[in-house]
Amino acid sequence: MSSKKVIELFYDVVSPYSWLGFEVMCRYRNMWNIDLKLRPAFLGGVMQASGNKPPAVIPNKFKYMNKDLARLSQYFGVPLHPPSDIFDTMFNKGSLAAMRFVAAVQEREKGGDKQVEQVSRELWKRIWCEDKDITEPASLCEAAMKAGLSSSEIKEVLELSSSKEIKDKLKSTTEAALKYGAFGFPMLVCHVNQKPEMFFGSDRFELLAQCIGEKWLGPQPDRSAKL
Amino acid sequence: MSSKKVIELFYDVVSPYSWLGFEVMCRYRNMWNIDLKLRPAFLGGVMQASGNKPPAVIPNKFKYMNKDLARLSQYFGVPLHPPSDIFDTMFNKGSLAAMRFVAAVQEREKGGDKQVEQVSRELWKRIWCEDKDITEPASLCEAAMKAGLSSSEIKEVLELSSSKEIKDKLKSTTEAALKYGAFGFPMLVCHVNQKPEMFFGSDRFELLAQCIGEKWLGPQPDRSAKL
Repeated sequence: MSSKKVIELFYDVVSPYSWLGFEVMCRYRNMWNIDLKLRPAFLGGVMQASGNKPPAVIPNKFKYMNKDLARLSQYFGVPLHPPSDIFDTMFNKGSLAAMRFVAAVQEREKGGDKQVEQVSRELWKRIWCEDKDITEPASLCEAAMKAGLSSSEIKEVLELSSSKEIKDKLKSTTEAALKYGAFGFPMLVCHVNQKPEMFFGSDRFELLAQCIGEKWLGPQPDRSAKL
Repeated sequence: MSSKKVIELFYDVVSPYSWLGFEVMCRYRNMWNIDLKLRPAFLGGVMQASGNKPPAVIPNKFKYMNKDLARLSQYFGVPLHPPSDIFDTMFNKGSLAAMRFVAAVQEREKGGDKQVEQVSRELWKRIWCEDKDITEPASLCEAAMKAGLSSSEIKEVLELSSSKEIKDKLKSTTEAALKYGAFGFPMLVCHVNQKPEMFFGSDRFELLAQCIGEKWLGPQPDRSAKL
């Protein structure tokens, strides 16, 4: 039996704050005594079911979000650059196909989650750094290729991603997030003494570390360690 | 001419996150080379003008906010306890009379802001710790008494608080907040090289410290200093 504490990370590649949370947890997963479970889910479903509205619909919030992301990009060491048309990217185009694709990668992958991690990162890079599409099959394949999947693997994943099995999988992960009380992503759920402790967003890591009895060394622990 | 960096803190005593931000800035005001300007304003006006909705209207957000505040209370060392009926306290009763009262205290006070600081704190304590009213004149007087104001001072402040002068003052501070891009409180505006840098909420202090060239020692710097 492992003594590692399980932490579930619910995320969607359409969400820039999720990217920050994702990179931080990937940096800490080997420094902390944790078992990180990546939980790709569908933010659109969470927003609709919880009745929440994205920050971008309030003009002053939207302006601040852009400033905030620019500051956090530097602080977290994550190359975030908002796409040219954020509204179109986030609300019209959305991420359903992309998140089904990630769910399919996860379904296929055995013995780890390196592929899920890499494919998710490449999708974030496309939207939130390179201003590229993530809705077309060709876009998803390109991301998977950069993530190191072979052509035959990509073909399989793409087919799988439109299956009922994968649609249901993404739906059930999204429902699991809602059951924990989700109203947005990233959402981190720490399992401590059989009790789920939920943390929302990318600004509660110090409290999360306390919760699991670990030490927070900032968003760039490698850099902190060197200082 | 002072080399101190001016930081404006916009707040409303109805907002628990404002209380956290307020206490942190009061702790740091003598540790950092800053000139802290307390800017009591009206959150209701900011929410309405910006089109923002309080987190509490989304059920999952509301549940999380309670959990989050309990965690932050301990982390910040601020004795936050939600009132028995948060909705009634925040939305029906509101804080207009209270914030006019604080604005009147500020108007009267010469040579510092000790009274504004103490009266604000006592009002937060009433709502966010002792589950007491802040809408009745008697409640405001009680808070001012605890804050150390004399009976004659309190009488003056109470009269002043319903004057056109003070109504206009609170309105103009609230409008100033909106001009900086407010959509909620606390909002901190750092003036660095003649440029205002706005920070929203109580979870960006490390970035704020970087912005003004100071060091962040956590929300309880006295405790950190002793460790």
